[in-house]
Amino acid sequence: MNSQNPVFIPGPTNIPDRLRAAMNIQTADHRSPEFVNFLLPLLEDLKRVFKTETGTVITFPSSGTGGWEAAISNTLSPGDKVLVARFGMFSHRWIDMCQRLNLEVEIIECDWGSGAPADRYAQALAADTGHAFKAVLVTHNETATGVKSDIGAVRKAMDATSHPAMLYVDCVSSLASMDFRMDEWGVDLAVSGSQKGFMLATGLAIVGVSQKALAACDSATCPRVFFDFGDMTRANASGGYPYTPAVPLMMGLRESLNMLFEEGLGNVFARHFRIAEGVREAIRAWGLNLCAILLISIPIRSAPSMCPKDLTAMRSPTMPSRNTGFPSVWVLDNWLAGHFVSAISDR
Amino acid sequence: MNSQNPVFIPGPTNIPDRLRAAMNIQTADHRSPEFVNFLLPLLEDLKRVFKTETGTVITFPSSGTGGWEAAISNTLSPGDKVLVARFGMFSHRWIDMCQRLNLEVEIIECDWGSGAPADRYAQALAADTGHAFKAVLVTHNETATGVKSDIGAVRKAMDATSHPAMLYVDCVSSLASMDFRMDEWGVDLAVSGSQKGFMLATGLAIVGVSQKALAACDSATCPRVFFDFGDMTRANASGGYPYTPAVPLMMGLRESLNMLFEEGLGNVFARHFRIAEGVREAIRAWGLNLCAILLISIPIRSAPSMCPKDLTAMRSPTMPSRNTGFPSVWVLDNWLAGHFVSAISDR
Amino acid sequence: MNSQNPVFIPGPTNIPDRLRAAMNIQTADHRSPEFVNFLLPLLEDLKRVFKTETGTVITFPSSGTGGWEAAISNTLSPGDKVLVARFGMFSHRWIDMCQRLNLEVEIIECDWGSGAPADRYAQALAADTGHAFKAVLVTHNETATGVKSDIGAVRKAMDATSHPAMLYVDCVSSLASMDFRMDEWGVDLAVSGSQKGFMLATGLAIVGVSQKALAACDSATCPRVFFDFGDMTRANASGGYPYTPAVPLMMGLRESLNMLFEEGLGNVFARHFRIAEGVREAIRAWGLNLCAILLISIPIRSAPSMCPKDLTAMRSPTMPSRNTGFPSVWVLDNWLAGHFVSAISDR
Amino acid sequence: MNSQNPVFIPGPTNIPDRLRAAMNIQTADHRSPEFVNFLLPLLEDLKRVFKTETGTVITFPSSGTGGWEAAISNTLSPGDKVLVARFGMFSHRWIDMCQRLNLEVEIIECDWGSGAPADRYAQALAADTGHAFKAVLVTHNETATGVKSDIGAVRKAMDATSHPAMLYVDCVSSLASMDFRMDEWGVDLAVSGSQKGFMLATGLAIVGVSQKALAACDSATCPRVFFDFGDMTRANASGGYPYTPAVPLMMGLRESLNMLFEEGLGNVFARHFRIAEGVREAIRAWGLNLCAILLISIPIRSAPSMCPKDLTAMRSPTMPSRNTGFPSVWVLDNWLAGHFVSAISDR
Repeated sequence: MNSQNPVFIPGPTNIPDRLRAAMNIQTADHRSPEFVNFLLPLLEDLKRVFKTETGTVITFPSSGTGGWEAAISNTLSPGDKVLVARFGMFSHRWIDMCQRLNLEVEIIECDWGSGAPADRYAQALAADTGHAFKAVLVTHNETATGVKSDIGAVRKAMDATSHPAMLYVDCVSSLASMDFRMDEWGVDLAVSGSQKGFMLATGLAIVGVSQKALAACDSATCPRVFFDFGDMTRANASGGYPYTPAVPLMMGLRESLNMLFEEGLGNVFARHFRIAEGVREAIRAWGLNLCAILLISIPIRSAPSMCPKDLTAMRSPTMPSRNTGFPSVWVLDNWLAGHFVSAISDR
Repeated sequence: MNSQNPVFIPGPTNIPDRLRAAMNIQTADHRSPEFVNFLLPLLEDLKRVFKTETGTVITFPSSGTGGWEAAISNTLSPGDKVLVARFGMFSHRWIDMCQRLNLEVEIIECDWGSGAPADRYAQALAADTGHAFKAVLVTHNETATGVKSDIGAVRKAMDATSHPAMLYVDCVSSLASMDFRMDEWGVDLAVSGSQKGFMLATGLAIVGVSQKALAACDSATCPRVFFDFGDMTRANASGGYPYTPAVPLMMGLRESLNMLFEEGLGNVFARHFRIAEGVREAIRAWGLNLCAILLISIPIRSAPSMCPKDLTAMRSPTMPSRNTGFPSVWVLDNWLAGHFVSAISDR
Repeated sequence: MNSQNPVFIPGPTNIPDRLRAAMNIQTADHRSPEFVNFLLPLLEDLKRVFKTETGTVITFPSSGTGGWEAAISNTLSPGDKVLVARFGMFSHRWIDMCQRLNLEVEIIECDWGSGAPADRYAQALAADTGHAFKAVLVTHNETATGVKSDIGAVRKAMDATSHPAMLYVDCVSSLASMDFRMDEWGVDLAVSGSQKGFMLATGLAIVGVSQKALAACDSATCPRVFFDFGDMTRANASGGYPYTPAVPLMMGLRESLNMLFEEGLGNVFARHFRIAEGVREAIRAWGLNLCAILLISIPIRSAPSMCPKDLTAMRSPTMPSRNTGFPSVWVLDNWLAGHFVSAISDR
Repeated sequence: MNSQNPVFIPGPTNIPDRLRAAMNIQTADHRSPEFVNFLLPLLEDLKRVFKTETGTVITFPSSGTGGWEAAISNTLSPGDKVLVARFGMFSHRWIDMCQRLNLEVEIIECDWGSGAPADRYAQALAADTGHAFKAVLVTHNETATGVKSDIGAVRKAMDATSHPAMLYVDCVSSLASMDFRMDEWGVDLAVSGSQKGFMLATGLAIVGVSQKALAACDSATCPRVFFDFGDMTRANASGGYPYTPAVPLMMGLRESLNMLFEEGLGNVFARHFRIAEGVREAIRAWGLNLCAILLISIPIRSAPSMCPKDLTAMRSPTMPSRNTGFPSVWVLDNWLAGHFVSAISDR
């Protein structure tokens, strides 16, 4: 795992030196007055990235997958019905989690490489006259295929049917690199992590929670302790944490926010888009096929001056088959990697 | 949170430079062949620290609290009965978790500052002729009071009554700094973390799991996905991870094992004991009271050459009362900190 | 060379984490516009530490010894006469350098452990009616013995005799940890380095140069190229460097200045004095002898929250003899080190 | 000076993470027994890179320019005659230094972009029947133009005339990235630095010195103290240093040697050549002109897995004129930089 070569994978992104320095700290006392003074503004500033004024941001020392579980287990009960579209590896895995947490899952099956079909969500919601659906789940940016979905359109579908379900969005690979509007889109649970748009190492789940979602915790009966929103919000309220936090990552998150705000969120999004477009143009010029119908790639989240490289899911003429252990692109000096290739090529 | 001053808190320990360097890495591809070759020996070598040959070691990007939840939710079912002694803040919190995960908890109440009473465990087990207890829980080293418990004695109590319950041990603050013998003591679930004896930042739960405990996963009905042993062991078997791992911490863990093995586990334990004894002698010489009846302190897990400082829970004549926000020791230049002071002084 | 244990040596000091982070950088382009914008304010701000408004600060990728050579070779010519007091290892070595650079050196021999004798300087200057002395050299703080000299008193001696010689001060171990007043004391050449009061690694000579000293460069015939003031000031004027600079150290110097200014120079000096006094009190309480008559020790230059430890030259009852290779204090877990012990104990 | 973007400049090279970690250390005691045990093998192993068995390697906390001054001032006397070819910025600056150190310099003027003309060296040496030349100076790799010279051919020219002059080679930008054979080529003074082939930060001059050159120190009358070979070799002999060394850089140098030896010097050279050839091919394919007649570029000294990027001096159709402050290539996202462009384009 050579650390010299930038990674170009559909996963965690390269870490700017400034953030590596911020995370490279000695142990600090997480019960000191200084930590209190550090934590409260951090949580407040995170709301600017989610674009929420009424919601709350909760962090867990965990991965994005842990964020998913927190969102579900705090707000839903076994047997609750949820509506979700499957169009890539991550929506697929989210569905699997719902089922294992004993929810009843209605799946909108889509071609992998497409985005969330707002019209089909609308149909399903319109059909649910009894309001059985407690939650509508959408993946904002499918990491595996590089497809962005239109969350606003799903919200409109919900509003059009006056459906009271809560809206859950997986924004793990979109938040802080694409525009995300929690309040405007009426998102109740927005699940992200430290290792994508925040440009940090893996290890923090970062979840935006609406007031409606917080209220839902009271009646939700899925068991949870480590991921309990109540423990966390009560401790956070006075600048504390219910257990030992991942202080280095939180320090890194502070510096990440500083970088994002210094550049300006709009400029960050424009940079990612510009770089991604360049890559897509190059792929077209090379005569290769893009995987996605509407492809908004996963750019390298990075400082503005990072090399203009990007990763975009593409379908190579030499695409390895499903059974290849590691895809052939590995031999190309690690410049490309396609871990989800088998799943994609097989569909 | 000044990072210059060593911490002397009953929590995470100081991080040797060597481990900070090991964790200060660029993003690496956790699905690369190199990661496979890295992960398998890491997991194997961890078994040497648990002193288990038959068990398996499982890691989660989480804290020790997450490790507790993993241990319980993978092996027990709602309504299962467990036996546990309460003698400090951490055993207290473990009990709380069991209750919230819908277990039926029989509590052996002890003075805080004492260790696990093997005789009272024996009585309770002898009384349980119907073998209702599915699990016996013991905290090896109570971080808050600095008291070590005799796990072997609890095992003997179980064996004396031929009780089939599994033995769960919280070794968060003992593993890798005190002798721990998973196989010899017949421990089924041994829960630890990265931030104590392994001298790393917080963010990894490290759990030793016996074959009996792995088998119990099949029938355990507590829901779990993020913390699922099955997902993890299946992925680990081929050098993978079911989601994005906390690679920097795992790299740090590799180097931590290197340090522990270079010094020799026996030498590490002896060093911690020697330093702790020095502190206890000093406390006695200063005329202060030690909190614990049998006090085995939480030494600073560190390289052999660290300053001979230590933290031992002590009861100061100026012990702040329960309602003090932050204890007065804070003003003493951060040399001492007593976060659990209020809980202790109040009992 | 364990890097975990703070050093307590009469040499370079411990480096705060904040400065280690500042120096831990990737290669940057020292001919970029950014470097220009970085260098000019850095050099300007350094003047605040020297307390000079009229002088210039020059840096070399070198050690303090290189700073000495730069000061001499740029402003003096072979055969020039200089006046200097010898009262410790560093004044001794400075004299040696002058002699090897072909100056004629008049030495005021003092007891090691004493400071610069202003009265004897006054006598020598008064006797020099022909103004043969081109330079008067004084060591501000003798690192080896921990003695501070009164530079203002030497200046008064020069003024009393209206002597036109330039005043050269070795402030390697005093600048930025003790009050230094270049303009007020009329210092022409003030030689320091990165590894003491600036809390950085060794590798930068930092020299304050008065206008009078700059003018002296024109007629000085000692050969120099690497250490040439003219090359450096001409390049610096436009934000450049005559050869490749030690960029990491200069980045560290920027952050060091930030730290010094944030705390306030007066507070920094007071902190060093307070800590040093504490050590001296402890040494007296232990019944050991201080080496110096008037002992102002070499405090650990560090962030305010560093452990209240210090190093003060002291004469131990078990002082090793001259011929001991490494002094016995080494066995004491590196807490004390006495490299100059042999020189001191032998006098 | 963004540290995220790799530099592609004719100067210091990118630093592998492994070496940044090695340099990122706390202050260590340079007079400890550990330092002795560290320094002696380091100096010995450096000889393998110079390919000398009979010579000695000397380091100074300085830059390559300091190494030049050390080589000259330790072995020559004012008025000594030296022979040198000028074909780029660095040979130009070396000549300037010789003149300022009062040597008599005979210059072989060449087109910039050409290499050292062995035949013209031969002519000049043959004409010097009185053996007035004390030193023959050759720049191995002209950093500014990217031209490698044939040192072996110059040695042959010297041998053909049985000329007793010493051979001085500037190998600052060649050593450890191109084959260099100090003993085979009969090099007496080989001057290098830490910031090129050794992949470290600037701050160490590294000089290979033959026995003949060491003997010449006795009679050389150029003054020197900081750069004195005698002080350094005497201190080094017992594992010491005559003043405070740049310990972080020396730690980095140890790890750099480890990397070079692990890969194998021959493999390192082949890698640099392969990458450079790729760049040259690309430049040709783009229809641009290479500057050099025989162009062996300055590759990025780096770990094998570094991005296959390189810098080669090239003459762009939009070459900025002499008076441009910073060349236009700066606007191209820092991908190219041509600081010496004005000097080259003007000739």
